[in-house]
Amino acid sequence: MIIVKVGGGASINLEGVVNDLAAIDEPFVVVHGANALRDELAQTLGKPKQVLTSVSGYQSVFSDEDAIDTILMSYAGLRNKRLVELFQRQGVNAVGLTGLDGRMIQGRRNKGIRVREGAKTLIKRDFSGKPVEANTALLTLLLDNGYRPVLAIPIADENGFAINSENDDIVNVLQASLKAERIIQLIEAPGYLDDASDESTVIAEMSQAQLISREDAADGRIKRKLLALRNLLDAGAANVIIADGRTATPVADALAGKGTVIS
Amino acid sequence: MIIVKVGGGASINLEGVVNDLAAIDEPFVVVHGANALRDELAQTLGKPKQVLTSVSGYQSVFSDEDAIDTILMSYAGLRNKRLVELFQRQGVNAVGLTGLDGRMIQGRRNKGIRVREGAKTLIKRDFSGKPVEANTALLTLLLDNGYRPVLAIPIADENGFAINSENDDIVNVLQASLKAERIIQLIEAPGYLDDASDESTVIAEMSQAQLISREDAADGRIKRKLLALRNLLDAGAANVIIADGRTATPVADALAGKGTVIS
Repeated sequence: MIIVKVGGGASINLEGVVNDLAAIDEPFVVVHGANALRDELAQTLGKPKQVLTSVSGYQSVFSDEDAIDTILMSYAGLRNKRLVELFQRQGVNAVGLTGLDGRMIQGRRNKGIRVREGAKTLIKRDFSGKPVEANTALLTLLLDNGYRPVLAIPIADENGFAINSENDDIVNVLQASLKAERIIQLIEAPGYLDDASDESTVIAEMSQAQLISREDAADGRIKRKLLALRNLLDAGAANVIIADGRTATPVADALAGKGTVIS
Repeated sequence: MIIVKVGGGASINLEGVVNDLAAIDEPFVVVHGANALRDELAQTLGKPKQVLTSVSGYQSVFSDEDAIDTILMSYAGLRNKRLVELFQRQGVNAVGLTGLDGRMIQGRRNKGIRVREGAKTLIKRDFSGKPVEANTALLTLLLDNGYRPVLAIPIADENGFAINSENDDIVNVLQASLKAERIIQLIEAPGYLDDASDESTVIAEMSQAQLISREDAADGRIKRKLLALRNLLDAGAANVIIADGRTATPVADALAGKGTVIS
């Protein structure tokens, strides 16, 4: 079992990813992004991303109903189904689902963000949250019958509402269900970079101990990414491979050990 | 088993449809449209619907890649997932799928439309076609495990490409798989109208013989609709109910015999 997280950047080679996966004789589950597509569509529709700053200084995306609509169009609609189409053209019987479908990814909605508006402190609640568990029964049903799940946000909150969530967290709950040996994360860089601005600084291998010491030294988004990686190892993944999604054969390259191998 | 075809008009009461279905103790499959949403989105994106006129004078929609993208955003993305969300909020474990997903609806791509351009006759081929069969195994797998399929275009062609298709034809191949006793079609009218411009002319009941004689007298789109209805009866449906999707309780009304009952 392989879990493949495909980044939502504009330069990811989706055809390459699909061709590689079609050639592999092992079941897989794909979780994909579509952030470049989403941002472009939001701009075209005149509904650009809203970012709020909390009273404690953190910035976060505010997912109102319009933002979820844009996610539905870009992630669940265009990107998910064009990916499924690529698989079907290669003879792979992919099934594209959001976390809402069959409550594939069950989550919990965030309580809200405390923001200042003039002299007042308000709590603004959006449609976002954290995944709690994957629907293992549905995953197994599909996989055992030869289907290949291709998953995207939104996920379902405790009341069945569509909410935005982080793919890193979704991969974590999927791993709790699937116990995949290998998890591949395809990004727009040749691997995990020691210096984020320099693609020549790929770290070829990272042990769990090195991961923890990097996590301690990092902050913000990078710290959260490293924590998510640590959780994957804790959930039993033997290997997490962070590799370049822009090459001709992104999955084959990752399986050949290119990129950053964390084990 | 009930098949519910939900029209894609702007005034269909989707919440009412979902609330009614959540209260019914019988498995169902939904096939929905989203044409009003699609047309609006196509306009906003600056990619309005293209209509071609064939050399023999027929008009048909030309579904190029952009048109399929718009279908993916509106049907597969926004409408399908918001419908699934409504079901999930009512505790119904809906799974939204296009015909591409798991090759749920396998079709055959149209050969092309012969058009005149200046002095020449060209064949223009788009991404559209006819459904051939539903994936009965996947439908059964989902239904037997308590899931409720909510289906939308596009469907898959013989090479796995996404193609546009008519929901009337999709309902027909579903009926060949599901052998539903009742098929409900929810539209923006109180039923099948004797005079399309006058909502007071609903035909309460139509026998198979009456259906055939109306079909002989009709032409164009109406003739195709009547043929599709006849095919449903031929495929073993005891009742086809054409009812108003705009009321507070559209499915309950249809099951109570409001609208046009064809049997």
